[in-house]
Amino acid sequence: MLKTRKTTEADAELIAAHRHAMFAEMGKSEATALDEMRSNFVPWVEQMIGTGKYVGWIVEENERPVASSGFFELEWPPHPLDPAGEHRGYLLNFWVEPEYRGRGLARELVREGLAESRRRGIWVTALHASDAGRRLYEPMGFKATNEMYLIDQTSE
Amino acid sequence: MLKTRKTTEADAELIAAHRHAMFAEMGKSEATALDEMRSNFVPWVEQMIGTGKYVGWIVEENERPVASSGFFELEWPPHPLDPAGEHRGYLLNFWVEPEYRGRGLARELVREGLAESRRRGIWVTALHASDAGRRLYEPMGFKATNEMYLIDQTSE
Repeated sequence: MLKTRKTTEADAELIAAHRHAMFAEMGKSEATALDEMRSNFVPWVEQMIGTGKYVGWIVEENERPVASSGFFELEWPPHPLDPAGEHRGYLLNFWVEPEYRGRGLARELVREGLAESRRRGIWVTALHASDAGRRLYEPMGFKATNEMYLIDQTSE
Repeated sequence: MLKTRKTTEADAELIAAHRHAMFAEMGKSEATALDEMRSNFVPWVEQMIGTGKYVGWIVEENERPVASSGFFELEWPPHPLDPAGEHRGYLLNFWVEPEYRGRGLARELVREGLAESRRRGIWVTALHASDAGRRLYEPMGFKATNEMYLIDQTSE
């Protein structure tokens, strides 16, 4: 039977492993960058769970973790879409073990994240969607934004 | 003669006025939302300039402000694109008075923002681009991301 629970600081290694698996599956990152990210992510998420800025959920079957996701509270300037708000919700680290896909677990985890935004009075919740993810998020009401970024790996 | 200077807390009202003008020109927001955003943004940016998370630039001609922009330091989890980093740069509040457009002021302000990321050792710098902005940012190396968001204005 599947049960969902909130993460604690003790889950930091598991969350990092799922984050690593997610990016590895997307196939766009080098193994060394993934390994370095993973080892730096463990203390980061441990700290952020402690402060309450990061909240995660783990779906377990007989205590085996089979899916997880996270919510992170970003500082954000008051914006016309949320003119009294100073935060955005950010959903991340969606992972479902391959043999558990197609059962709606990811959708359930998105709903957990949106409920977390609602509890915090946050009106705008963002995420970065893989191609597979987009097919899940669009029917739930997510829309593509006009975000752009520049990567400058020569920074100190 | 045009001179660029950094913002101080005393510029909060001016920065908010430029932010208001920017969103008003995009034409997607209601006037009441823009007014509410503006009045909440003033103390927000004042505080963020104080902490150093927000840095802004103002271009002046004979002490008249004619253009401005800002940089905000977002907390971000270690990511394959910046595996030892815990921040992203975010560029915002680009405004050039209409009669000063077409002279490269916006491009100069983007360069200020990217230099700020570099000084802070930040590898990824994001922004949200208006249609007009995209034509500026693309040749500078910015690429569209896969960000999506959901807006839930029924949150408390």
